[in-house]
Amino acid sequence: MSTPFTLLFALYPGVTQLDFTAPHQVFSHWPAAAVHVASLEGAPVSASGLHFDRLEALETVARCDLLCLPGGPGCTDAMLDARFMAEIRRLAAGAHYITSVCTGSLILGAAGLLQGRRATCHWSMLESLSLFGAVPRAERVVRDVHVITGAGVTAGIDFALTVVAEVSGERAAQAIQLGLEYAPAPPFDAGHPATAPAAVMRDVRERQAAFRTRRLAQVATAAAALKAR
Amino acid sequence: MSTPFTLLFALYPGVTQLDFTAPHQVFSHWPAAAVHVASLEGAPVSASGLHFDRLEALETVARCDLLCLPGGPGCTDAMLDARFMAEIRRLAAGAHYITSVCTGSLILGAAGLLQGRRATCHWSMLESLSLFGAVPRAERVVRDVHVITGAGVTAGIDFALTVVAEVSGERAAQAIQLGLEYAPAPPFDAGHPATAPAAVMRDVRERQAAFRTRRLAQVATAAAALKAR
Repeated sequence: MSTPFTLLFALYPGVTQLDFTAPHQVFSHWPAAAVHVASLEGAPVSASGLHFDRLEALETVARCDLLCLPGGPGCTDAMLDARFMAEIRRLAAGAHYITSVCTGSLILGAAGLLQGRRATCHWSMLESLSLFGAVPRAERVVRDVHVITGAGVTAGIDFALTVVAEVSGERAAQAIQLGLEYAPAPPFDAGHPATAPAAVMRDVRERQAAFRTRRLAQVATAAAALKAR
Repeated sequence: MSTPFTLLFALYPGVTQLDFTAPHQVFSHWPAAAVHVASLEGAPVSASGLHFDRLEALETVARCDLLCLPGGPGCTDAMLDARFMAEIRRLAAGAHYITSVCTGSLILGAAGLLQGRRATCHWSMLESLSLFGAVPRAERVVRDVHVITGAGVTAGIDFALTVVAEVSGERAAQAIQLGLEYAPAPPFDAGHPATAPAAVMRDVRERQAAFRTRRLAQVATAAAALKAR
């Protein structure tokens, strides 16, 4: 492991910003860490009206200790982008930890990095992980040797604290948790299909329906391409 | 209330990015909302290595339904910036809701917007609210009529879901919570001084000590200025 411990978030168009901004905030309070954020050619990335500028170019990042793929509506387009995926494979080959938040694990899967590995994902796409040879687990944070994956969006906080504890110990992680006042108190218990009211589940499924059909087709294409490699 | 419901995050140098990126993510999934992000003159804002570009100029925002002040290490500099504070007072005068996350409530306080109001803040600065005539409350989200404040950093998620439920009802908020898989599972119970191990509390206090001294002096200056208005 190098000093500092270098972490890299690999962004792409259509990323969900909280998937990386939340763990980025955790890691930015970690004295031992150097956090990098990169995209293909360092192109700026926009996400729901926030615009991220001055990104590094993935092509110029020699290596990192931890590679993190955030998820988002654009994740299936990203996994079909040969240049992006070549950079992900190259950086993963040199990393100690290969990680993701939300549907970022589908990108890891499409890159062939999850074969035989237990991993998690946003609940809505969890089962798709098996198309890439991964073993889907409906847990908040899943660790399988050097692969650490977080569930949907907000799981990125739990994921990041788990990473800090793994590398620098519990006390370091707890100090960051206290600094970020991470003592969550959701006003409702609706954050998971197991607890959400049926009507709310229906609303979300309906809103996602058209998008989901396209997404599943892209996952199937990526899975076929992986098998053919 | 206008349609769409317009929300404005007012940024400044030294803001903590998760204080606004987390509620921004919640609000961006809210069909009834239009979310704006602005700074003085629309100047880009950097936070711990993330660079936010293409911001609106506070001066050009005519009004908003909800004004939100995120917190951060720069909050006390911001409250001593006369131009910034003039914009905050102007926008607050036209808003239905005046809100904050973390130490953003100190800015509201310095603007004279919390006199006699119950409000919360990051635990480390909570008591300072009383210097601005507010009534500090050690709660995750505090509502006092049109003033809604969230506690430290990650409380921004709980704050934002509370706002959505208030304006559009519980079902709308729960659908967003499910979409963001907000079923938090912190790996440790160290997110608040009441539960953090003593050694961790000491680590955080020690790290903050020098910064805290300067910050408290700035709060005192802002409080004196408010009294003299």
